[in-house]
Amino acid sequence: MHFTQQHIAALEKHSRAHFINSLSGFKSANLIGTQDTAGNTNLSIVSSVVHLGAHPPLIGMIMRPHSVPRHTFENILATGVYTINHVNSKIYKQAHQTSARYDQDESEFTATGLTPEYLNEFNAPFVQQSRLKYAVKYLEHQHLAVNGTELVIGEITDVYFDEIALQSDGFLDLTAVDTVAVSGLDSYHGVNKLQRLPYAKK
Amino acid sequence: MHFTQQHIAALEKHSRAHFINSLSGFKSANLIGTQDTAGNTNLSIVSSVVHLGAHPPLIGMIMRPHSVPRHTFENILATGVYTINHVNSKIYKQAHQTSARYDQDESEFTATGLTPEYLNEFNAPFVQQSRLKYAVKYLEHQHLAVNGTELVIGEITDVYFDEIALQSDGFLDLTAVDTVAVSGLDSYHGVNKLQRLPYAKK
Repeated sequence: MHFTQQHIAALEKHSRAHFINSLSGFKSANLIGTQDTAGNTNLSIVSSVVHLGAHPPLIGMIMRPHSVPRHTFENILATGVYTINHVNSKIYKQAHQTSARYDQDESEFTATGLTPEYLNEFNAPFVQQSRLKYAVKYLEHQHLAVNGTELVIGEITDVYFDEIALQSDGFLDLTAVDTVAVSGLDSYHGVNKLQRLPYAKK
Repeated sequence: MHFTQQHIAALEKHSRAHFINSLSGFKSANLIGTQDTAGNTNLSIVSSVVHLGAHPPLIGMIMRPHSVPRHTFENILATGVYTINHVNSKIYKQAHQTSARYDQDESEFTATGLTPEYLNEFNAPFVQQSRLKYAVKYLEHQHLAVNGTELVIGEITDVYFDEIALQSDGFLDLTAVDTVAVSGLDSYHGVNKLQRLPYAKK
């Protein structure tokens, strides 16, 4: 099938959102943990986390400031820190539920039954149920004028994970910690191993 | 286990790359098809494709201008167009092989046995073997001074896909077209369905 630009533009709004969100392929499922300066915790599911570089270890994510996860963005700017927690198959329903429109003083932790966990005095909550999670220090955001989104850039500091995931060359086997993938706006997926391939040479 | 910032910085370079690249979770596996102004085709695997918005339909990807896919970036700037082709389980080994350091006049299509396909006079090659692929018009790139990478932003114009993937609400079932996921630098994964969840409400 072939959908042209005109066809896409003519799709009903929700259909277009489902369709276009499917095109970026399988995405990572992450819960972003933050708190405001009064200590009110916030948790939001984000599927736009993207690797930026290993040295220094940088991670990016796309945020839409005026949509649901706006509290996350505001908290990051206010406190300068956040956590990224991999979603696994035991908590994906609760993770998805964090996308509901809770108020600033309602914690998604309380609302969904996920447990906030504070590690090594880091000023943002981790998700206890996540088996691979890391602390991030906010560095900067770049405004994408093309559609009003923000690319939020942070440096990875501390990483917490189940030992079973770590392989001898530094690779973390995400299937060992049951990390799931997302597609589109609402589809969750289990993942299995095909193969690791050697460094490609001509 | 807990890896601190100091521990991460002390990792051997390749181990750190494997480790940090694992943290972003499951990523989409895409082949970016381009050509230069002389018509030399190029194909490179990219795992950093990220959804930016559905209206207008925008897609981003992170490129490292001085690494292997530099020809891709140069071709995009020269011609203003590119294709994004989902990698499926039948072609993931060939897709990975495109990451070898071929010269500008060596096509990764020829080297890997993937077939270039031209659709509706679009000035960049698609991958015939891909079952979900789309044409992208380059809009702009944002330089990330923090580590010298580029966020390349484009508008999705034409989308080609196997009809079997399309669901009634516009969602594309990526498992129906056998799209794979990537983790780390070199691990390929099959994906199965857990569940689609309804729009979350308080």
